[in-house]
Amino acid sequence: MRGFAELIYIYKREFGKDVFNPKLPFTIGHENVGIIEEVGSAVDWLSKGDPVILHPYITCRHCKACRAGNDMHCPNGKFPGLDGTDGGYAEYLKTSAYSAIKLPKNVDPTPMAPLADAGLTAYHAVKKLKLDPDSKVVVIGIGGLGHIAVQILKAITPATIIAVDVSEDRIKLAKELGADEGVIAGADGGVNEVLKLTNNEGADAVLDFVGEHGTPKNAIRMIKKGGIYSIVGYGGEFTNTTLDFISREISVIGNLVGTYNELAELVELYAREKVKLRTQMFRLEEANKALEMLKSGKIAGRAILVP
Amino acid sequence: MRGFAELIYIYKREFGKDVFNPKLPFTIGHENVGIIEEVGSAVDWLSKGDPVILHPYITCRHCKACRAGNDMHCPNGKFPGLDGTDGGYAEYLKTSAYSAIKLPKNVDPTPMAPLADAGLTAYHAVKKLKLDPDSKVVVIGIGGLGHIAVQILKAITPATIIAVDVSEDRIKLAKELGADEGVIAGADGGVNEVLKLTNNEGADAVLDFVGEHGTPKNAIRMIKKGGIYSIVGYGGEFTNTTLDFISREISVIGNLVGTYNELAELVELYAREKVKLRTQMFRLEEANKALEMLKSGKIAGRAILVP
Amino acid sequence: MRGFAELIYIYKREFGKDVFNPKLPFTIGHENVGIIEEVGSAVDWLSKGDPVILHPYITCRHCKACRAGNDMHCPNGKFPGLDGTDGGYAEYLKTSAYSAIKLPKNVDPTPMAPLADAGLTAYHAVKKLKLDPDSKVVVIGIGGLGHIAVQILKAITPATIIAVDVSEDRIKLAKELGADEGVIAGADGGVNEVLKLTNNEGADAVLDFVGEHGTPKNAIRMIKKGGIYSIVGYGGEFTNTTLDFISREISVIGNLVGTYNELAELVELYAREKVKLRTQMFRLEEANKALEMLKSGKIAGRAILVP
Amino acid sequence: MRGFAELIYIYKREFGKDVFNPKLPFTIGHENVGIIEEVGSAVDWLSKGDPVILHPYITCRHCKACRAGNDMHCPNGKFPGLDGTDGGYAEYLKTSAYSAIKLPKNVDPTPMAPLADAGLTAYHAVKKLKLDPDSKVVVIGIGGLGHIAVQILKAITPATIIAVDVSEDRIKLAKELGADEGVIAGADGGVNEVLKLTNNEGADAVLDFVGEHGTPKNAIRMIKKGGIYSIVGYGGEFTNTTLDFISREISVIGNLVGTYNELAELVELYAREKVKLRTQMFRLEEANKALEMLKSGKIAGRAILVP
Repeated sequence: MRGFAELIYIYKREFGKDVFNPKLPFTIGHENVGIIEEVGSAVDWLSKGDPVILHPYITCRHCKACRAGNDMHCPNGKFPGLDGTDGGYAEYLKTSAYSAIKLPKNVDPTPMAPLADAGLTAYHAVKKLKLDPDSKVVVIGIGGLGHIAVQILKAITPATIIAVDVSEDRIKLAKELGADEGVIAGADGGVNEVLKLTNNEGADAVLDFVGEHGTPKNAIRMIKKGGIYSIVGYGGEFTNTTLDFISREISVIGNLVGTYNELAELVELYAREKVKLRTQMFRLEEANKALEMLKSGKIAGRAILVP
Repeated sequence: MRGFAELIYIYKREFGKDVFNPKLPFTIGHENVGIIEEVGSAVDWLSKGDPVILHPYITCRHCKACRAGNDMHCPNGKFPGLDGTDGGYAEYLKTSAYSAIKLPKNVDPTPMAPLADAGLTAYHAVKKLKLDPDSKVVVIGIGGLGHIAVQILKAITPATIIAVDVSEDRIKLAKELGADEGVIAGADGGVNEVLKLTNNEGADAVLDFVGEHGTPKNAIRMIKKGGIYSIVGYGGEFTNTTLDFISREISVIGNLVGTYNELAELVELYAREKVKLRTQMFRLEEANKALEMLKSGKIAGRAILVP
Repeated sequence: MRGFAELIYIYKREFGKDVFNPKLPFTIGHENVGIIEEVGSAVDWLSKGDPVILHPYITCRHCKACRAGNDMHCPNGKFPGLDGTDGGYAEYLKTSAYSAIKLPKNVDPTPMAPLADAGLTAYHAVKKLKLDPDSKVVVIGIGGLGHIAVQILKAITPATIIAVDVSEDRIKLAKELGADEGVIAGADGGVNEVLKLTNNEGADAVLDFVGEHGTPKNAIRMIKKGGIYSIVGYGGEFTNTTLDFISREISVIGNLVGTYNELAELVELYAREKVKLRTQMFRLEEANKALEMLKSGKIAGRAILVP
Repeated sequence: MRGFAELIYIYKREFGKDVFNPKLPFTIGHENVGIIEEVGSAVDWLSKGDPVILHPYITCRHCKACRAGNDMHCPNGKFPGLDGTDGGYAEYLKTSAYSAIKLPKNVDPTPMAPLADAGLTAYHAVKKLKLDPDSKVVVIGIGGLGHIAVQILKAITPATIIAVDVSEDRIKLAKELGADEGVIAGADGGVNEVLKLTNNEGADAVLDFVGEHGTPKNAIRMIKKGGIYSIVGYGGEFTNTTLDFISREISVIGNLVGTYNELAELVELYAREKVKLRTQMFRLEEANKALEMLKSGKIAGRAILVP
């Protein structure tokens, strides 16, 4: 397959370097959408002109994880735009037909690009939680992924949502998007306020989209007996005594991207306007400018490159 | 209820002190069995003479956790023998009727005492795992709880069991009890050998009955993508980067004691001789002697006090 | 406990007679709310003046089902108002403290009575389904339970909801309450229209609040491979070949009332106005008049008796 | 792929005709194993000489069911040997590489053929049940699939197994293979004896490998409140009132073949000798003779054709 691609590169610290250590040079860009240009002879379910969104991981299709639908655990996969496999900062992108989710004819896939990884990861993390109408869930960090997570929590669970962030503007945004409560993370990272909002029992789950600057330490103080600390953001360290793990029977779980089916489900939420994205468009030739703006915090929402 | 009690006190480091900080003096002994001596007027399902094993936690019966069957998460409960509530180093023990599991008439409950907490905790930890015939599970520490865990894994799952311990004798015991493979934990804690036994992918789950002396650090190196590190032993610290949590999507879960129903299930396994206990009996007046022997490692298996 | 009770009797065919065959006379009324008048000496979590809603089943608290939270499967329980145990058509009601869910002070529990069984059963049935954003669920029968089910589906799942009823008014109501599609059940019971709305694959699940007049036969034609036909209404018969069961791998599941915790969750949804009830109040002395109106279809929504 | 195939055709009534209505003529044989002869250019995980067992369903790999690992629910799949697609009564078989499970070098796959569908279906049905050490499960029909199911139940669950059959020999076989209790199905189909063995509460689950001659009617009388009647055999009808479905909250579930991963798990059980098969070998040219013997009940266990 060759695709007409719109894309963005997550520019956060050393993910690519630490995890993948790719051989340079290669084409970055791992959140990709586009229009099918050409398909191989064995592909009869896609054709030229189909708008598609791409699952970010190219999987082998025959390992145990793939056969169970756990695409993200395939030991033989490739991450275009991250691990040295060419990604989407390009006019055309060649990838596996099994990565493509076909969208309805006439849909412009451009603005959906951030669903491909940022949205998918948030969706995957939310879906692993079991939340009831009397559950309380904390979202730490209302940035690129966090603001999508709040909307997904609102759309697919009945839990009370508590947003935690250092910025008042972001707390305001979280409330507009569906958060029931907002907590400014002060010196204690918001721990005391969260405990107050949860009858001093703690929350059923904390979704942490920061994963550094002390959030791991604070997050486990926010959860109740039997509760879950769910990590999405990265950069820092998590430390806890084994005694606390067992005496409160808490769980700490990591989240990679979601499955192919989860991306299809998220696309459905987006089509029904349950999830909205704040995006800013750039021409492909403006990529470096967009990246500079991203670095200096001048992008509101998520930048998308359009060839 | 008053019970004729046989019992033992887990004498491990500072669990009682750190977690409960009980007011002294009180009667210790939190793994209790006995014969019913008397029941209150509202109790019509137990009567004098019934042999019983006691769930180690007295729960409130009306909180959300109790109503869901998650006895160990009750925020209003009491741990007889641990938190200042009188336990079983005594001729009689008063407890809640809801803690008692009735055994068949004529069964002598004495040798079953170690099921009440040691066995129950191991059973609870095993039951939370989803293990298939092609799963591989590691058990670190073939001591009091670990040697029960191996038997439970054998009885209720089809997984391949890999036992890890510093002692050759204990590895031998593990194999007699059902372990498929045994690994002597050398300088690397057994990590390389476990990786070799799991096609360099790592195990689906690691059950850690040590929880200190470096086992947390080694354990997470033994698990595969999407794998689970399950903590039962305590005393040490667990540290990991948030990046490793997400890039391998691993989970770290703590285990407290199990539920009332899980204890009933374990009793059933014991009755069918799927779980055997190594025990040594002492008279109640020999309690201090037994504790001294325990401290100096002279008890083979688990000591039981008989009034 | 003695309660100031508001209540209603489900007057549908022969449920009481066929299932319970109660000894007459007794006081009917099985959806009960009220204000605590008195509690026994062992009850320290409720006190005089507390507003409460009652779980409809008095359970034994010590059987395996109770200990797992599956209140409705307790083999030793009693159904006040149904099985010969006195129910709520009375000034005061004596029941088990374990049936009562405490509501916030100052809340008038009167209008919540229909949650106690009608609402709870709908909630229980919905909660057993696993529905994703691309799932399609059919609700057959938009009456007393069905109109609550539509709201619950909207509140706790992201599925597309297809309402099926013989009445245009009820379809209109369903859409106002959150149904995405409405189908008038004609000669084929709505089967063809449902298939058309589901790409001829069928729905993921059908919730049948009628359970007679041919709905069982139609419902299984509406579900897809691997789909679920979930029965709540009763009166008719269900028949299918074993060949169809296996070749499409379908499931047919019955629903009794929900658990105590589920009722607490539903109360939370009600408090947040995610579930609204249409009710009509009568004085206790008007009970016979209310029942006559119910029989002749003159009650809009659900009738509540107020002492 | 072309395979050197050993195979057998399930010759039971009208499955093929009723469900698939295949266009004749075609090559039958849907339980296939063999040695890889040739692979396509895109297949890099299989090569000439690999022994393989084939999943019985050729799936599309891109539908929602395939992407979730639910191979058997793929709406685009083909059943070689059943639906008009050529099967394994042949020297060579062409199929999808995604159907093949690679076995260890030097393993002779011939005797494993019955795992491919008979075994897989039994495994799938068992795996859907949640069985604890105090659970009781009934197996109706100790024939081709049932005698495998008893072994699988023994290998992967701790439940008490009650075998029900009309034949004393088969009950004896069931006990040799791991059944805890045996019940001769007399006039009542074994219902009363099963109730006696389950404290008059009924079993947690019944696996029915007959599915006709009254077993559906008897099976639901054997299950407890909240219990499951799981259908594998077919030919008859199932009928029940909706009232019984709801008042006992029972479930009736159908079973098709299992997933690709389940077949791999079953192969693992077989390799560890937890599942043994009774088989009888025939040369491919003896196919008609083998089918005649099958028809007249002269095959003990399962017949395998060897080219």
